[in-house]
Amino acid sequence: MKELTEKQISADYKYRGKIINVRLDEALLANGQKAWREVVEHPGGVGIALEDNDGKFFMVRQFRYGQGKETLEFPAGKKEAGEDDLLTAKREIIEETGYEGENWVYLGEMAPTPAYDTERIGMYYATAGKFVGQHFDEDENIVLEKYALDELVEMIMDQKITDAKTIGMTFMVKELKNRR
Amino acid sequence: MKELTEKQISADYKYRGKIINVRLDEALLANGQKAWREVVEHPGGVGIALEDNDGKFFMVRQFRYGQGKETLEFPAGKKEAGEDDLLTAKREIIEETGYEGENWVYLGEMAPTPAYDTERIGMYYATAGKFVGQHFDEDENIVLEKYALDELVEMIMDQKITDAKTIGMTFMVKELKNRR
Repeated sequence: MKELTEKQISADYKYRGKIINVRLDEALLANGQKAWREVVEHPGGVGIALEDNDGKFFMVRQFRYGQGKETLEFPAGKKEAGEDDLLTAKREIIEETGYEGENWVYLGEMAPTPAYDTERIGMYYATAGKFVGQHFDEDENIVLEKYALDELVEMIMDQKITDAKTIGMTFMVKELKNRR
Repeated sequence: MKELTEKQISADYKYRGKIINVRLDEALLANGQKAWREVVEHPGGVGIALEDNDGKFFMVRQFRYGQGKETLEFPAGKKEAGEDDLLTAKREIIEETGYEGENWVYLGEMAPTPAYDTERIGMYYATAGKFVGQHFDEDENIVLEKYALDELVEMIMDQKITDAKTIGMTFMVKELKNRR
């Protein structure tokens, strides 16, 4: 088994922001060499594939500033410090869709950009329960839409959906359904 | 159609690094409010699902500093400034596997973290052609492995693969094969 581990030698914070911090670390590589590693620290988040009684999934259309365009994504949200993934998921799904989630299934964890970002996304599949009303964050400006799973697959293959977690989760839910 | 576009008012560079830059922008939201937006600028990259004659896919095991652990991913690499995705893909696949790619199919683009990161990953599916030999970047320390597509799906569902592009691309290649 080849040793691959890289160890932190030093850390220099270059930016401490509201959502992200940025560090420049010196790292000791497995081959004994040293290298610089830029790291974006992010609190992590969750994504939720919420299915209604008709087999349709709630999707959020919103402007994503980092990409400079509108995207269509599964409902998602950032974790509060130290918050459990499932707690975040239960909070965010109400905030964005107005529905409580039921029958929660944990699909696993996704690393969107493992090389330089600490972000991990906890992925969930749930069914829509009681409607209790949406309550958005003040600067959230979103449109809710609903699509069948096969429509989501089509939109992925047609590049109408490009968000990493939404692509992965759509297919993981489909795979899960195929296995049941 | 609800207007969602956010416009840049100002940009303040907080960090200019080797791979990433970080900006704090003030943005004008569609509802007339202003908000701060943290943006990680990244040159973007490519991922390549390279299939050999036996239907096995080349995978790279490496330590990912951002996640602090080993990952198993499709071969991938960063773009040089202004470089065309396909050119990057043809270069990177030789560097990491030693094989030239053939029969290149563009699967589309993925946004790993659309909210705060400009990174886009161009996704390709190709078959292995002539072996011309690997040549790694000096601080790249990787192990090459090969798996069948169904093994990759298993490893995704079992959380042995958590990299976003690898999850998405595995299923997109599978979907593509099902349609042929």
